[in-house]
Amino acid sequence: MGELQWKTGITKIEPNKIMVRGYPINDLMGKITFSQAIYLILKGELPDDKVGKMMDIILTASIDHGATPPSTLAAITSAATGAPMNASLAAGILTINKYHGGAVEGMMKLLIDLVEKIEKENLNFEDAVLDFVKDKKEKHERIPGIGHRYHTNDPRTDKLFQYAEELGFSGKHVKALKSIQKKFNEISGKNLPINVDGAIGAVLCEMGFPTALGNMFFIMARVPGMIAHIYEEQTTQKPNRKIHPTDHIYIGPEERHL
Amino acid sequence: MGELQWKTGITKIEPNKIMVRGYPINDLMGKITFSQAIYLILKGELPDDKVGKMMDIILTASIDHGATPPSTLAAITSAATGAPMNASLAAGILTINKYHGGAVEGMMKLLIDLVEKIEKENLNFEDAVLDFVKDKKEKHERIPGIGHRYHTNDPRTDKLFQYAEELGFSGKHVKALKSIQKKFNEISGKNLPINVDGAIGAVLCEMGFPTALGNMFFIMARVPGMIAHIYEEQTTQKPNRKIHPTDHIYIGPEERHL
Amino acid sequence: MGELQWKTGITKIEPNKIMVRGYPINDLMGKITFSQAIYLILKGELPDDKVGKMMDIILTASIDHGATPPSTLAAITSAATGAPMNASLAAGILTINKYHGGAVEGMMKLLIDLVEKIEKENLNFEDAVLDFVKDKKEKHERIPGIGHRYHTNDPRTDKLFQYAEELGFSGKHVKALKSIQKKFNEISGKNLPINVDGAIGAVLCEMGFPTALGNMFFIMARVPGMIAHIYEEQTTQKPNRKIHPTDHIYIGPEERHL
Amino acid sequence: MGELQWKTGITKIEPNKIMVRGYPINDLMGKITFSQAIYLILKGELPDDKVGKMMDIILTASIDHGATPPSTLAAITSAATGAPMNASLAAGILTINKYHGGAVEGMMKLLIDLVEKIEKENLNFEDAVLDFVKDKKEKHERIPGIGHRYHTNDPRTDKLFQYAEELGFSGKHVKALKSIQKKFNEISGKNLPINVDGAIGAVLCEMGFPTALGNMFFIMARVPGMIAHIYEEQTTQKPNRKIHPTDHIYIGPEERHL
Repeated sequence: MGELQWKTGITKIEPNKIMVRGYPINDLMGKITFSQAIYLILKGELPDDKVGKMMDIILTASIDHGATPPSTLAAITSAATGAPMNASLAAGILTINKYHGGAVEGMMKLLIDLVEKIEKENLNFEDAVLDFVKDKKEKHERIPGIGHRYHTNDPRTDKLFQYAEELGFSGKHVKALKSIQKKFNEISGKNLPINVDGAIGAVLCEMGFPTALGNMFFIMARVPGMIAHIYEEQTTQKPNRKIHPTDHIYIGPEERHL
Repeated sequence: MGELQWKTGITKIEPNKIMVRGYPINDLMGKITFSQAIYLILKGELPDDKVGKMMDIILTASIDHGATPPSTLAAITSAATGAPMNASLAAGILTINKYHGGAVEGMMKLLIDLVEKIEKENLNFEDAVLDFVKDKKEKHERIPGIGHRYHTNDPRTDKLFQYAEELGFSGKHVKALKSIQKKFNEISGKNLPINVDGAIGAVLCEMGFPTALGNMFFIMARVPGMIAHIYEEQTTQKPNRKIHPTDHIYIGPEERHL
Repeated sequence: MGELQWKTGITKIEPNKIMVRGYPINDLMGKITFSQAIYLILKGELPDDKVGKMMDIILTASIDHGATPPSTLAAITSAATGAPMNASLAAGILTINKYHGGAVEGMMKLLIDLVEKIEKENLNFEDAVLDFVKDKKEKHERIPGIGHRYHTNDPRTDKLFQYAEELGFSGKHVKALKSIQKKFNEISGKNLPINVDGAIGAVLCEMGFPTALGNMFFIMARVPGMIAHIYEEQTTQKPNRKIHPTDHIYIGPEERHL
Repeated sequence: MGELQWKTGITKIEPNKIMVRGYPINDLMGKITFSQAIYLILKGELPDDKVGKMMDIILTASIDHGATPPSTLAAITSAATGAPMNASLAAGILTINKYHGGAVEGMMKLLIDLVEKIEKENLNFEDAVLDFVKDKKEKHERIPGIGHRYHTNDPRTDKLFQYAEELGFSGKHVKALKSIQKKFNEISGKNLPINVDGAIGAVLCEMGFPTALGNMFFIMARVPGMIAHIYEEQTTQKPNRKIHPTDHIYIGPEERHL
């Protein structure tokens, strides 16, 4: 044993054997989805089908939001100068931070704290949420997860909550978020939606993910989306073009349904 | 229309509506897996269940290879200095290149060229493969996808080809790769396996993916794996430790089966 | 004026004219050093020769620290996989964080707070420093800038302070740092040095740089150093080698003097 | 000696001693400029004052080109989302590639090949350049270093060549580049300038730098420039703003002279 020897609990490699969290990877292939494999490697245990389906829904919901998010713009700005794909992808990932994609983690922390406080101090749920919203308002602090800079009613949120209900992930944290939104709108006279990042944060709390991994769901989902944009830039646009952050038109397939 | 206006065909954003390749994202949620969503955004069309399953198998096969790959080492080296997760992930992605993760794309190019040549010139399949292998040998050029620096028989390859057969992705490119391996071993008197990257490259050819996206499958799969390693580094290791590239031991769950 | 029009105060570009902070760049060429140009672009004003020389000393002091720093290891780990130089450099820069290269900014904040407190509250200098050190000790908080994980007497620190004295940058912040070290060692019975990052932090305070730019000096200095290591990796090492974090030997020129 | 032991020739670290290319770093501090230190670490030998001055001129010339270059836009796009400075800088560096900042290396390769050919084949200089330009024209290949997308007469080029002449770096490669430009304009009836990247490439050839380091000069120079833009973004702009690639106005100091 060398003096620098260290320990890891994720994957064991032996000659002709690769075991992820104990499971031979060739046993997993074909038996679980990629989403279930993601859950396994992050949480250490195999998810059942309901968990797997919830993972699929969360990751599908965030796969892309068009050409205007700053991560996409940074990725294609890099691609336009002739970068290899992985470098452009890295530039995009470095552009996912507090103000873009960061609402998931912020929401999780807030909901976990609020629910914990209610339980520890044995508070009335609705009163506690009302106090929380009032306090935020007085301090002029933004609540992550409430409001979207573009959508007045985020179409992904309802669908996410509907499945969360159906699949058994609609517990205290989801309830708290819905209550926060209701009270926020009552007090402020506004009609702001819960955005998808906030909704995902609430569901990830129900699934028992640590807050530190919250934004990683946004990143894991957005990676294939950014790759699609990088590939489009490389194959259809002129090198080194000036990229306008909003003035573009969509030329893909018209609306269609499954 | 501004003079910088540009066109994109991936996702259309309208108020309260997000359409990926034409499909409202809230319609997709719960109806397709994340792997199918990845196929949709990259190829532009919804995959059927067989394609979706093949995607799951490919991405699951590559999700992690323990703590020794250079991408993982770069990611945790960055994490150990106190980097945020996305920065460490970017460092890892920047460490996936020609000599690590690059075999997928190399294999695809080679197989597409070889199959095209055989068809265009109406060559005998086995003779053409033999000539190809001899030519590589004479030029002392390595064939990507043949051999693994650790495994003598990559356990993921057989499983991948088995499902490719079952799901209908075992065409000319897979056949060519198997033939290349056979002839290479005959000529060289070696017994080298097809590695998983090579096998994935062959199957991606069958699925019609452009070669430029080959290495992206390695990256998309490895992203959650690297996140697991970064999180482990942040939560279980001492800041700024010296990271030995091989001398570590596995302390996770013992071998188990589904 | 478009609705997205924005303002910048760094460089004005006109046809055949490039003015950095107001100065035509072709006028600057040959009249100022690169270090002076760095000062100009960061602070907005041309430095005199003393400031320029202090910049040269700070940046030269940090240009490299051999092959063991994590930033260098991340950079060459990336390079060994076949990355282009800028990608490897980016991986290295992403590995400069709180626990590596972060002492400059930490030191600056601490010294600025301490000096401000002494002046505002009209405290006795030595008493205030003693209280500060005792307080840190009681809270078991590490003081950035004191101690080095390798050197017991950082050879760069004395030289830096000597020039700071000579060039007029040896004011309250430098005095405070020296006093902190003295009292820390008296109280703890240790004999820890001021490390070069701490010393640089103190001098940057004297030069009026904002704390937010502190670590950037480490990065600006280390960029050419990392490039040298990346180039060495690319031109003298085998692709994809396993990189030991400490077990290497030096084969360059023997000790020599100007 | 461990089995992974490796060799490096850049910096030797001993307790209380740091020797860059053999020179104790504390001996270098105050005796050489940062530019000379850069030369030393990259080339392995101490430069004289003329070389040092030429380095200062090259690096000063490229320190910034305002807010429109893609590297700057990627860096501030990342910064606007709340990234730490090093992550934004990395995003910027990942956006310096073939089509932006890549002309230095391209120029160097071309000039070295051309000069070598002339000498090996004992060709008439002017005839060989003419043939070279005609050949490029016939093949519709762009000559890097000729033309600028904004400036019709790059003000940095004349100044660079003037100093190269004065300091002794105006040899065959510079002569070849000037001749290429002259013949290109004669043949095409255009009046394109030599851009600063091309001129720097020619001078770096005279200084004996390997072509692989050509673009690194652009990057080393641009790092402080990008840091200035990132800092400006963080301290003066709204988070997550939409960044127009061209529509901005300059609000810094008016034109002034040394």
